[in-house]
Amino acid sequence: MSHITATYLIHDAKGNLPKKAEGIALGLTIGSWTDLPQLDQEQLKKHKAEVVSIVELEGNARTNEYFGKNLTRGYIKIAYPIENFSLDIPAILTTVFGKLSLDGEIKLVDLEFSEGVKNAFPGPSFGIDGIRQKLGVYNRPLVMSIFKGVIGRDLTYLRDQLRDQLLGGVDLVKDDEILFENPLTPFEKRIVTGREVIQEVYESTGHKSLYAVNLTGRTFELRDRARRAKELGADCLLFNVFAYGIDVLQALVEDKEIDLPIMAHPAVSGALTPSEYYGIQNPLLLGKLLRYAGADFSLYPSPYGSVALDKGETLGIADELVKEDVFKKSFPVPSAGIHPGLVPLLIGDFGIDSVINAGGGVHGHPDGAIGGGKAFRAAVDAVLAGQSLQDAATEDEYLKKALDLWGV
Amino acid sequence: MSHITATYLIHDAKGNLPKKAEGIALGLTIGSWTDLPQLDQEQLKKHKAEVVSIVELEGNARTNEYFGKNLTRGYIKIAYPIENFSLDIPAILTTVFGKLSLDGEIKLVDLEFSEGVKNAFPGPSFGIDGIRQKLGVYNRPLVMSIFKGVIGRDLTYLRDQLRDQLLGGVDLVKDDEILFENPLTPFEKRIVTGREVIQEVYESTGHKSLYAVNLTGRTFELRDRARRAKELGADCLLFNVFAYGIDVLQALVEDKEIDLPIMAHPAVSGALTPSEYYGIQNPLLLGKLLRYAGADFSLYPSPYGSVALDKGETLGIADELVKEDVFKKSFPVPSAGIHPGLVPLLIGDFGIDSVINAGGGVHGHPDGAIGGGKAFRAAVDAVLAGQSLQDAATEDEYLKKALDLWGV
Repeated sequence: MSHITATYLIHDAKGNLPKKAEGIALGLTIGSWTDLPQLDQEQLKKHKAEVVSIVELEGNARTNEYFGKNLTRGYIKIAYPIENFSLDIPAILTTVFGKLSLDGEIKLVDLEFSEGVKNAFPGPSFGIDGIRQKLGVYNRPLVMSIFKGVIGRDLTYLRDQLRDQLLGGVDLVKDDEILFENPLTPFEKRIVTGREVIQEVYESTGHKSLYAVNLTGRTFELRDRARRAKELGADCLLFNVFAYGIDVLQALVEDKEIDLPIMAHPAVSGALTPSEYYGIQNPLLLGKLLRYAGADFSLYPSPYGSVALDKGETLGIADELVKEDVFKKSFPVPSAGIHPGLVPLLIGDFGIDSVINAGGGVHGHPDGAIGGGKAFRAAVDAVLAGQSLQDAATEDEYLKKALDLWGV
Repeated sequence: MSHITATYLIHDAKGNLPKKAEGIALGLTIGSWTDLPQLDQEQLKKHKAEVVSIVELEGNARTNEYFGKNLTRGYIKIAYPIENFSLDIPAILTTVFGKLSLDGEIKLVDLEFSEGVKNAFPGPSFGIDGIRQKLGVYNRPLVMSIFKGVIGRDLTYLRDQLRDQLLGGVDLVKDDEILFENPLTPFEKRIVTGREVIQEVYESTGHKSLYAVNLTGRTFELRDRARRAKELGADCLLFNVFAYGIDVLQALVEDKEIDLPIMAHPAVSGALTPSEYYGIQNPLLLGKLLRYAGADFSLYPSPYGSVALDKGETLGIADELVKEDVFKKSFPVPSAGIHPGLVPLLIGDFGIDSVINAGGGVHGHPDGAIGGGKAFRAAVDAVLAGQSLQDAATEDEYLKKALDLWGV
């Protein structure tokens, strides 16, 4: 039988994890068991979830004082038969963490899908290899920068900002995720303008790049807008997936007429992930589920900046995005607080199959976005050549200015 | 100028709420201010969010020990100009709680919409008055029951269970939220069967009732499935809105070809709401936003059962659903752990404009679902007549058996 197996972290006031686990396995499937007549038991057996394992953690919760009660902590794993639900993310989430999400201190830590079950999901259409082919860049992390301060600005402003970023040598530029449809820089015009600037820079320098335009609007309009983006020559879509739903991302990926790389932004996901007691674990949400649903890139807070995530979690997300699986790999994009001095750490932690993504670390360079991009590219080259940034900076004034400003 | 004003609860390690607030107001809109040339300031002024108020709370966070740092607590209110985003829920959430949701201990407590801004939302199509008209019930809370243990069962089983529930006198019966498309009881057959049973019971007893069928599947198929439900004579749709997105609910409400009451289930919402530090406050999520988006009913955990919510939060949700506004009122449905002995409390807390909703409290009655429904109706009649349940139970054997089993 095929299953989806959920792992939960429980803080249980009643101190009886086996009973809690059995209650979940029954309550979220057939409701009752021991009261059922033999005949019903036979009929319903294949629908009953099974408790796979229970691991009680040593010690006690850190915040007993807060809860004012004695909490037993542990991981429980429950296997739900796929006979019980349709193989879509909303049905799966409703089954494994629907009313259960409301049932005390419980966090959804992981979901494991039997091999056959994975066929219901597309995975990335392009993935790391496909994106590298588009750019012709194979042996280094990609460098991305972000439009900054574009609300209230016009197309000329965007055009200039994009050109500067590209001239610095970044591979990707993404829209600000809070730039929505607006009269000054409407979606379709941004795409056309972006194409023009990318082409211009390519013709003058030979440098290839991609621009991720923010796909926004009402849910049921998204497919048409994305198809229109494709027609207009868009390179890539930025998508605030958690403001919509992971199933919407999947539908965009599966639409053959769209056929564009999709960059998933973590906006709103912080409402779900940071509590130790509740919600959904980051590597599952921003790693595994986004990859299964088909994001080519997953952005998430880096462990270094002011908006920082626990380092273990950031590595866990990256691992889910790139580990062996039936799906193509998605690019990890650890973001926020990134400057050129962090490139050795970034490559050390996330390897070359990652995207180095900066906003202020590009635009805030003393020589502007051109200098910022060049400093990042010089830092990447140095690390891959086994050179220290300080040494490299003696030969590269952009890198030197960046290190002087932000440190190593 | 029109705004959407967000209230946040902050636990700030840096102890400087005004600075934090100003950082948010700039960071989530135009990015910087003091560095801008005069001309740019004039151009961008209307796009800058404004800090409306800062209220530092006395005392300190309860769990300093957990965080290992000294946290200043307080509410901050920030007004975002609607020039900055399109008036849809995904754009609003991404603006006010997008990357901000990832920025430390911050909870989104409330959103206030200028009157004009509310025009972008439909509110309930039917609302409390419309549902009452369909049922012909005006002066008491409605009584609802839930199919139980239906996974792996066939249509005959559902038919019998529905008939028993209706013969007990409940006004509404809802699908189990974990019943998805399946070969034994497919969506369309459930609707047709439900219609038949409702009609049968109406013809034999004169009792009107509604059946809420669970609308499930891939996001982009939902509108067609809902329209088909309407054609087949469905009464009402149950919808796991938080497994999809609030914008999807809104689109279903706005579709003129669907035109059915929608009952929002709170499945998965517990991933967003329970932490004191993170996520979205219940009255906003399960109250205001569901009403604005057009849910006719909002289910949420009652304050009484084992899956219980803080009483203040349940009252806050109900208040958002029924208070004076430009929208129709939505039915509060405090659920879970409800039995007839709780009816005085339910009516005392939530008034007659609410739905009394029970699963085990109907099906677990010694005389089955028929007895359970009758016991609830008798309890409601007693409370409205100013009679104690014990007194009423001397004249009603169903109520007596319920009180004997579950207490008062």
